[in-house]
Amino acid sequence: MKTVGILGGGQLARMMILAGAPLGLRFRIYDPSPEACAGQLAPLVNGQFDDLAALQAFAGSVDVITFDFENVPAASVAALSALRPVFPNAGALAVAQDRLSEKRLFQALGIALPAFADIDSLATLQARVAEFGMPCILKTRRLGYDGKGQFRIRSQADIGAAWQALGAQVDAVGLILEGFVDFDCELSVVAARNAAGQFVAWPVTRNWHVDGVLSASLAPCGLPAAVQERAVAHARAVAEHLDYVGVFALELFHCDGALLVNEMAPRVHNSGHWTGDGAQTSQFANHLRAGLGLPLGDTAVLGVACMLNWLGQMPEAAPVLAQAAGFWHDYGKQPRAGRKVGHANFRTDDAPAMARALQQVGQALGREAQVAPLLDALSVA
Amino acid sequence: MKTVGILGGGQLARMMILAGAPLGLRFRIYDPSPEACAGQLAPLVNGQFDDLAALQAFAGSVDVITFDFENVPAASVAALSALRPVFPNAGALAVAQDRLSEKRLFQALGIALPAFADIDSLATLQARVAEFGMPCILKTRRLGYDGKGQFRIRSQADIGAAWQALGAQVDAVGLILEGFVDFDCELSVVAARNAAGQFVAWPVTRNWHVDGVLSASLAPCGLPAAVQERAVAHARAVAEHLDYVGVFALELFHCDGALLVNEMAPRVHNSGHWTGDGAQTSQFANHLRAGLGLPLGDTAVLGVACMLNWLGQMPEAAPVLAQAAGFWHDYGKQPRAGRKVGHANFRTDDAPAMARALQQVGQALGREAQVAPLLDALSVA
Repeated sequence: MKTVGILGGGQLARMMILAGAPLGLRFRIYDPSPEACAGQLAPLVNGQFDDLAALQAFAGSVDVITFDFENVPAASVAALSALRPVFPNAGALAVAQDRLSEKRLFQALGIALPAFADIDSLATLQARVAEFGMPCILKTRRLGYDGKGQFRIRSQADIGAAWQALGAQVDAVGLILEGFVDFDCELSVVAARNAAGQFVAWPVTRNWHVDGVLSASLAPCGLPAAVQERAVAHARAVAEHLDYVGVFALELFHCDGALLVNEMAPRVHNSGHWTGDGAQTSQFANHLRAGLGLPLGDTAVLGVACMLNWLGQMPEAAPVLAQAAGFWHDYGKQPRAGRKVGHANFRTDDAPAMARALQQVGQALGREAQVAPLLDALSVA
Repeated sequence: MKTVGILGGGQLARMMILAGAPLGLRFRIYDPSPEACAGQLAPLVNGQFDDLAALQAFAGSVDVITFDFENVPAASVAALSALRPVFPNAGALAVAQDRLSEKRLFQALGIALPAFADIDSLATLQARVAEFGMPCILKTRRLGYDGKGQFRIRSQADIGAAWQALGAQVDAVGLILEGFVDFDCELSVVAARNAAGQFVAWPVTRNWHVDGVLSASLAPCGLPAAVQERAVAHARAVAEHLDYVGVFALELFHCDGALLVNEMAPRVHNSGHWTGDGAQTSQFANHLRAGLGLPLGDTAVLGVACMLNWLGQMPEAAPVLAQAAGFWHDYGKQPRAGRKVGHANFRTDDAPAMARALQQVGQALGREAQVAPLLDALSVA
């Protein structure tokens, strides 16, 4: 019976445990916080992600290591990799941790992406903003997530403000300027690859963000098959180049028929949460199967599936559970403004049934605004 | 955040935890064994089921109590019920713990069942065997499961042998003689009821036993709708009479169009394991929803579903996981002859796809005999 060590003990680790226990796996969690919610389901070791001695001791207590948090320092990953198999590999993680590296990889693979530039000074920033036009977005190269470490530049005055907000981080994590994309919709490909080279992708997911944080996902996305195949081909090219093992997400913009890749996440991903109830195999199960050398499971969507993220605090469960289509996911976390505390999944045989369920849930929970874009998309489907 | 206490820490408790964590529930397990496999996923308190002081302390650490093991002594259940809500209730548990009580209940509800008689002596046994004819089966009234505590009487000589094997238990647990039923097939209704009176049942399941232990299950069962409705009506009548809260199983024989009820199990049941991957809502989720006063989930089967039990030791996982239809359930137990160590579920859109998957798995694992009855049933479906 193998023990999987997970670095990071949030909801992603928690859902990996729930999917991995039926495979006969045991788990150990490494996280700085004694409150890490995955610790409700597996032994939790508290330590910092740069504490090499603690990480090495942790590695000694497990058979294989993976992540629910990708921003583990490269030196830590290298130290762990010397002791135990780590998936995804250190090289893949290093690329995905750095917006500049991953964009250069996309470029090298011939994948279209928005304009970007390395920013090392206020002067470079000014020059590049002039070149890209406004709006555009200054971001940290590393350690950003869910819209954190970003500053949108809409006017000349914003350039100085953006530098004031993020310029101090130029040496520590680097900065990158990205051209603004006036997209029709946001998409993601959630995919898995194992060491034998087997590659699978779930149907392309359509996503909606609010204030930089995922609010809702829908699969299938309703775009033409050719577009979806191109998106999956991009994901496959990236995975093969990185010799990637495990699940990852590739986020894309769709604009006027074109696909522009935004970024990759080297882990199970919020936009793949619907697979937990809406696909034959979940992203969590396939991530573990990939890392343990097991065959990857079927990624078909069972009809129509969608997800609503719950931020801050959990709504009332009953209106969701009263729907035949509804599934509840409470991460067991304390409420806190903006925190991802749970989600609801929905699965139906067809789009009209999904629209009915979402309309009722939106009304019952007073979340009409959150379900509105899904209802729009479903009415077209 | 509520904490559910579970008496008994085997695979049923383990699968309840996996289904209950997404509802935001925490769990604590009470079991005599430090190896209880549910203890891999929740804090495990070791104690005997008749240790009232230990049980009371356990009750004090949880919000609500349920069972993965129904043979907890009545005095223990009463002591727990005085401290915390317990589901199913003590009265329902007492009836289901005693073959004679449950058969008298079935009879009182007008539900057909095989001949039975209370046996208090060898003389009574001889008289009743003469009345019922052979074969017939002597069983302990209480504490039997999976074919344990049973003796099949095929000849006059067997009567004395049966009394020798089980007669000593007549005072402790009682004995019952049951007429033999030459059934066409074995069925079960797995159903759930909550305190508000909401009642749901999964499609009637067809089961195959080997040496008294479940080997395989298939849903839907393929019998006419009227027969299935009658079986579900029986389950509903029993649940309403007992004011039952939670999931239970009613096992039935089908012979020449007639339905005879065999017994009930006052808990999630092996014949409902397919619901974990083959139904919109699993028996484990609905058991907890029922006990916590949440709406019960939809029980529709998603196409065709079946289960193969693994006894003794786990087979190789890869041939099952290589099937798009296949799901793996390893209970994390040590191998031991005859022990239930895991199961595989399968879900497909239709019967031919299921037959193909089972044939391949049966061959790959050298378990053609185990899948053969399923293939027979699917070829008729």
